[in-house]
Formats: sequence, C-alpha cells, structure tokens
Amino acid sequence: MERLTADQDEPRSRSKTGAPVDAGRRILIKAALASSVLASLRAEPLNAKGIRMAENEKNAPPARALTYDDVRSVSPALEHYTKTALLDGVWKRPELTPRDRSLITIAALVARIQTIEMPFHFAFALDNGVTPAELSEIITHLAFYAGWANAMSAVAIAKEIFHVRGIEPEQLPPVKAKPLPLNAEAERQRATQVANNFGAVLPGLVQNTTDVLFRDLWLRPALTPRDRSLITVSALIANGQTGQITYHLGRAMDNGLTASEAGEIVTHLAFYAGWPNAFSAVTVVKEVVEKRPK
Amino acid sequence: MERLTADQDEPRSRSKTGAPVDAGRRILIKAALASSVLASLRAEPLNAKGIRMAENEKNAPPARALTYDDVRSVSPALEHYTKTALLDGVWKRPELTPRDRSLITIAALVARIQTIEMPFHFAFALDNGVTPAELSEIITHLAFYAGWANAMSAVAIAKEIFHVRGIEPEQLPPVKAKPLPLNAEAERQRATQVANNFGAVLPGLVQNTTDVLFRDLWLRPALTPRDRSLITVSALIANGQTGQITYHLGRAMDNGLTASEAGEIVTHLAFYAGWPNAFSAVTVVKEVVEKRPK
Amino acid sequence: MERLTADQDEPRSRSKTGAPVDAGRRILIKAALASSVLASLRAEPLNAKGIRMAENEKNAPPARALTYDDVRSVSPALEHYTKTALLDGVWKRPELTPRDRSLITIAALVARIQTIEMPFHFAFALDNGVTPAELSEIITHLAFYAGWANAMSAVAIAKEIFHVRGIEPEQLPPVKAKPLPLNAEAERQRATQVANNFGAVLPGLVQNTTDVLFRDLWLRPALTPRDRSLITVSALIANGQTGQITYHLGRAMDNGLTASEAGEIVTHLAFYAGWPNAFSAVTVVKEVVEKRPK
Repeated sequence: MERLTADQDEPRSRSKTGAPVDAGRRILIKAALASSVLASLRAEPLNAKGIRMAENEKNAPPARALTYDDVRSVSPALEHYTKTALLDGVWKRPELTPRDRSLITIAALVARIQTIEMPFHFAFALDNGVTPAELSEIITHLAFYAGWANAMSAVAIAKEIFHVRGIEPEQLPPVKAKPLPLNAEAERQRATQVANNFGAVLPGLVQNTTDVLFRDLWLRPALTPRDRSLITVSALIANGQTGQITYHLGRAMDNGLTASEAGEIVTHLAFYAGWPNAFSAVTVVKEVVEKRPK
Repeated sequence: MERLTADQDEPRSRSKTGAPVDAGRRILIKAALASSVLASLRAEPLNAKGIRMAENEKNAPPARALTYDDVRSVSPALEHYTKTALLDGVWKRPELTPRDRSLITIAALVARIQTIEMPFHFAFALDNGVTPAELSEIITHLAFYAGWANAMSAVAIAKEIFHVRGIEPEQLPPVKAKPLPLNAEAERQRATQVANNFGAVLPGLVQNTTDVLFRDLWLRPALTPRDRSLITVSALIANGQTGQITYHLGRAMDNGLTASEAGEIVTHLAFYAGWPNAFSAVTVVKEVVEKRPK
Repeated sequence: MERLTADQDEPRSRSKTGAPVDAGRRILIKAALASSVLASLRAEPLNAKGIRMAENEKNAPPARALTYDDVRSVSPALEHYTKTALLDGVWKRPELTPRDRSLITIAALVARIQTIEMPFHFAFALDNGVTPAELSEIITHLAFYAGWANAMSAVAIAKEIFHVRGIEPEQLPPVKAKPLPLNAEAERQRATQVANNFGAVLPGLVQNTTDVLFRDLWLRPALTPRDRSLITVSALIANGQTGQITYHLGRAMDNGLTASEAGEIVTHLAFYAGWPNAFSAVTVVKEVVEKRPK
C-alpha cells in the first residue's frame, strides 16, 4: 500500500447526504501513476488530464491503489505502522539499498499475487533505480519461480505503468541476447545430481530445469546473477518454501549476496510476507550463512 | 460464499435472447451491504436507493459478492454443501460461538487474500458481535502476521462496509492507547531466546519482533489477548505454517483458549482453508493440546 | 496466460497522442469467450456482437484476459517462453492428454486463486474435452480441497463462461445422484485410523471428513475417481502441501493414475505453480511411485 493518490476521494467517501456516489471523480491508479509517486506521496492534487484519463477508464485496471485516507478510515493504527515501522523504519535501514528493497518487495508481491500493492511498488521500484528492463525481466523470471499466472497478474499492472511512463518496446529485454558465461562444471554437477535423483520418475521436469531454466533463463543478461538470486530467494521466503532456500541462498552468496544482506531480506519480508514466513526461514538462513566459509 | 444479494441478477443471467446484458441492473456488493446481511439472506428485494448506488458505482469495489443463484448456475451441489455442511453444519456446532467463527473466518480470508468472501464475512462478523473497532484491529494485526498487502486488500473492502454502515472514525481504535500489562518475565525469556538464536544473523528481525510486535502490537487493548491469539493461530493454520503453530497455540491457551476450541478451529478452517491445511495442522494441534497440563 | 482476445487493444495501448484512452473499445473476456478460444488464438477479429457485449459490461468480470500484445508490452521474453516452453512445449508432451493437462491446470489455478488465467483455462478445458458438468464438479471438489472462497472465485468466472456458452442448468451435476460404490473395507480402515489418531482432539474434523468427504463427495458420479484424485493431487502440489501428497497420490494410483502420469503432473505444475513447488514435491512423488508394487 502506502499512499499513491491524492485526497479527492475523501470528501465523497465521508458524505453523509446519501446522494449517489460520484464514481466518476474517483482517482484511479492510472491517474495517480501519471504524476510521479513522490508527488502523490505529498498529496498534491492531480492534474486535470490525469483525472480525465481515470474518468474514461471504464474498465478499471486490476487494482486501485489505496490512499492513506483509505487506510485511516479503517485503521488509524495501520496507517501509523505503515508510516513509522515500515516506511520510516525497515525501508531506511542501511543493510540494503532502496533498490534492493524494491526488488525484494516486488518478488514477494508477485510470488503471493498481492496485486493491490503492485501499482505502488512497481512505480516505486522504477523511482528507486530499477530499470524498466529489469522490472520486465523480474516478471519473466518469476513466471518460473512463482507460477505463470503470478507473472501474468504482474503483467496486467506493469503494462499500465509502462504505458503511463512511456516505456518503449526497445527499452525491454529482447527475446534473444548474448548469454552470460556458463559455469560449465558447476552446472554439469547440478544437472547430473538432479538427473540421477529424479530423471527416471520426472524426466520432463529434469529436462526443462536444465534446458529452459539453468541454460537459458539464468544466463539472460537482463538481470545480474546476484539480482536474479535475490528475487528468487525472496520469492521462496515469501511463500514459505523453506526446502528450496538452502540451494538458492548458497547460489545467491556465490553470486555476491552478503551475509548481512541475507539476514536483512528476512527482516524486510517479515512486513511483506508476514512474520510467520520470516520465522519459518530464520533457521535455514542462519544455517546457510554460518556454514559459509568466511 | 453464501448469499449476499437479492435475485435481480437471475433473469438476466438466464436470458436466451442474446441481447446485450444490462449491466446497469447488476446488484453490487455496496447495494447489498446497504441492506442488512440477514435481510439479503432472505432474498428480499433491495430498495431503489441501493440499486441506484450500484448503478452509479462505475468503478466497482474490489469484489462483488456472489449470490446463491450465481453458485447454483455453476454448481447446484456447491450451493447445497454451502447451505448444509457449512452454514447449517459447522457454523452451528456449539464448540465455538458465531463470533469466534467469524474471527477465525476473517483471519483465514485475510491470510489467504480470499477477497471474494470478504464483503460477506466482514459484514457477517459485525452482525455476529465483532465490533468495528475489533475488525479494524484484526486487519492491523494481520498486516504483521499475514503480510502488509493482505491487510491492504482487507482495508479496501472494510472501507466500503464501514462507509455503508456509517462507522465513524471515533469508533476505531486510536493509534496510541494505554497498553495492556506486559508479562515482563515471559517476554524477557522470549526476547532472550530469540536474540541468542538469531540476533547475530537477523538483528533487524529480532529488534522489530520485540519492539513492534511483542511490546507494542500485542499490548494494544483493542483486542483481548485471547482474540488476538485466536486470529494468529487461525492465520497460521489457514496458510499451512505449521512450524509456527506450537508457540502461538500454546500462547493462545495461556490466553484462555480451551482444548475444545483449539480442535474446533481446525474443523472450521477445513472449510475455509481446505482440508489439506486442516490435516497439516492436526498433528501439531493434537500434540500441543495433549501435552498441556490439565 | 496465453492469448484470449484479438488485437484491437494494441493500437490504443501504443497511442502516443496522450488522448484519453477509449476504454469502450476494450475487448473484455466475455467478448473473447463468445468466439471460440481457438479462433481467438488465431487473432481473428471478434464480431460486432462480442464487442457490443463488452461495451455494455460496465461491471467488468473479475478478471480480464491478457493478450499476447499485453504480455509483449511488458516482456517479449515472457511471450516467447509462453509460446515455446509452455504451449508448444510442456502442453504437447505425450505423457498426459490435453484434457488431463487442463484438469491439472484448473486445479492449480483454483487452489492458488490465480483468477487472471481462469477465464482462458476454463474455456480451454471445455475445448479440450472437459464437460461443463466436470468443470462444475471440479469447482465443488476444490471447495473442500482448496478452500471455500477459492471455489467461489472460480464460480464467479465459470458463471460467465457457462452463460456465454449457453450451458443449461440440466447439464450440471445434480445435488443428489446414485453414489459410486464404496470400498467399504478400505474406507472403514481409513475412518478408524483417523478417528483413533484425532477423534478425541478434533471430533468435528473427523466426522466431517467421513460423512461429507469420503462417504458423500468422493462418491459423486460427476467425476471419475481417477479424475477426482488427479485434481486433488494437483491442488496439493500446487500449494506445496507435501505432507498430504503420499496418501492422495497412492489413492490416485489405486484409481488408475500411472507412474508416468504422476511424474508428468509435477512437470506440468512447475509452470503453473512455480519450480519451487515442483521441487518440493519431487522427493515424495518419487518415493510413492518407487515403493508402488509394479
């Protein structure tokens, strides 16, 4: 959540007259995104064009961003925690950059189909230095690591943001690009182990894992291996898939993630995926970090 | 689901003429909520004002409540099970009050972002004796125990219900209130154990858990500790987070939850979170209950 | 995802004029479904009536289907993987029929509330030989195995598809029908074991499991036991509920599922529920298959 739109909604939502709600005055996410997120964070009135776009948007986008007023109208305490513990709290801790926190947050939202916060956080990520190409590639990557429909829910929202921000097709990662170098020996070991364990019972999974994931997707240059690992680990923690964390967190640290960053991912995700998912991850994260040669 | 709206939809949805659907006649959730849930359960026609509101609500709320007719148009058997096994079945078992069942159901819906049933169950909870202040605080609590965006999805729906029911800001729990007494010794033990185990690797998580959760959120007087535990345990079971059940179910029983109620939570959640999540919880629930000194 | 609608959206979404978006021209899912899915897969223009219906559908259905153009506007690579690895890849592997793959896909979408792909895949399932009665019964079954609200989210979408395709109430499975024969000895063993283990702590769950699930739902003739097992196992894998796989995969193989099919379910679900859920299931699937007497 967090604020995305201006306060035009407010008088209407508190109307006591019983008059029909003037829905046309609603400020949709598309309008909000037309102005910058930071501007809307300061609750500046949106310009007329932005409102006009919203009025014409009969087929509403999949999610409307909430305002602080919306949150306060249900829970003043939740608004308070959002501003203090979350935005002025964990987001400002120095252990991770705002860009990293945006990557982690996006991974959690997509992995959990938390569409209501995608409009804000996709736009916020772009403001935090995530490029449109990287956002595009994150969604592609998470199709494989969170599920095809999860990625499609993200597409529906990213499309609107890319449109409003004027992102051109040539800014997006191409279908084919010169792959990153493959660590052939490590990949041979991985492929052999998986094939020996599961090749007889699950030949299709083993083949797709090798051909599509580790020798294609992971070699795409649109994300650094470190960032690709960061969103993979974040998605695993966000969905409580603790059994898969050991391999991918080890790989993430091979790709440059530090021990301090690893711990802070869990702290950040406590807010976006809930404390229980964070605490389900702590034992395995601690084990991976502590067993790591210094 | 369960019925929320009257039957005006029905003739249209069975139209065989091929004429364009008159969408303006759709009865939206907002209209349904304008009348009482119990009235709509009896399928009384909604008043003109309710329909008018719906017609003007171009930007539809995040979820439209389904009617029994909707359910029957896809599965007469599911309508039957809803009426018999669920509403006349588990909901009427005496092991838990309707108010408790509403708390458990809401926790499951928010924890799983099952938005489609939130409008009905938020309204139903208010009719079952959950106060607006309690519903507000449940959503705040679940931001931490299910994820921030889960709470925000609930805010979007609760906002409409609070508006229709005329809930005033002064009915909501304030940001700051005199905290409940802290069991300092138990909290010291908890904090020490977590800090010893995870403080080196996850300092931010340990700090936030202590400062924001156990010495702030849990001490807010807007929910009794027993109810706060009830929704926490329900959220854990609903999301299959079995590793976290032992601590929180023990705490719930410290806070007054009985063994009979503990078992019945699982029975109730079998319907709302699915049988597999219920059976994933049975072993740990049984263990906690049986190990408990009588 | 995968394509559902024609390309009328495209010029608009690339408009550079800044003119208000003509939302009325949007092609909604309802229009897309009015033509056949295969036709829309070939991107033929939709007929005027289809568009008219969409224009009049002010209260949009819960999900709008994405087009390939939508996906490409965010990620050309994701469009490519959708066409190659998914539709021309795993969907064409001979280990499972297209009908089986539709059953598995629907189970995953409902179990995970991935509404955005339900419109396409419900329609695609009907084209792949799943009957409306079977789709109805799958949703009913998953109310119990994935959660009531999951089924209700599916009802909201299936209702539109049944309406557009002119499915009559008499085509749906009746509330009561002659039950399939009960394997009384196996069921007595199951019921006894569960009652002995959990009857004292969770009497309501034990009773409902016996009365509503195994002596009612599972005996409904609207799905073959093999298909009922197929969607149950798929829902378990899709939600990472590995603790429940052993029993239900064994039951599925008792009901006729082959070892090759069992492995291929996991391969298929890697795409729809993400690689981590697939790999969380591999060990238990392998164990069940290999321990099975040949």
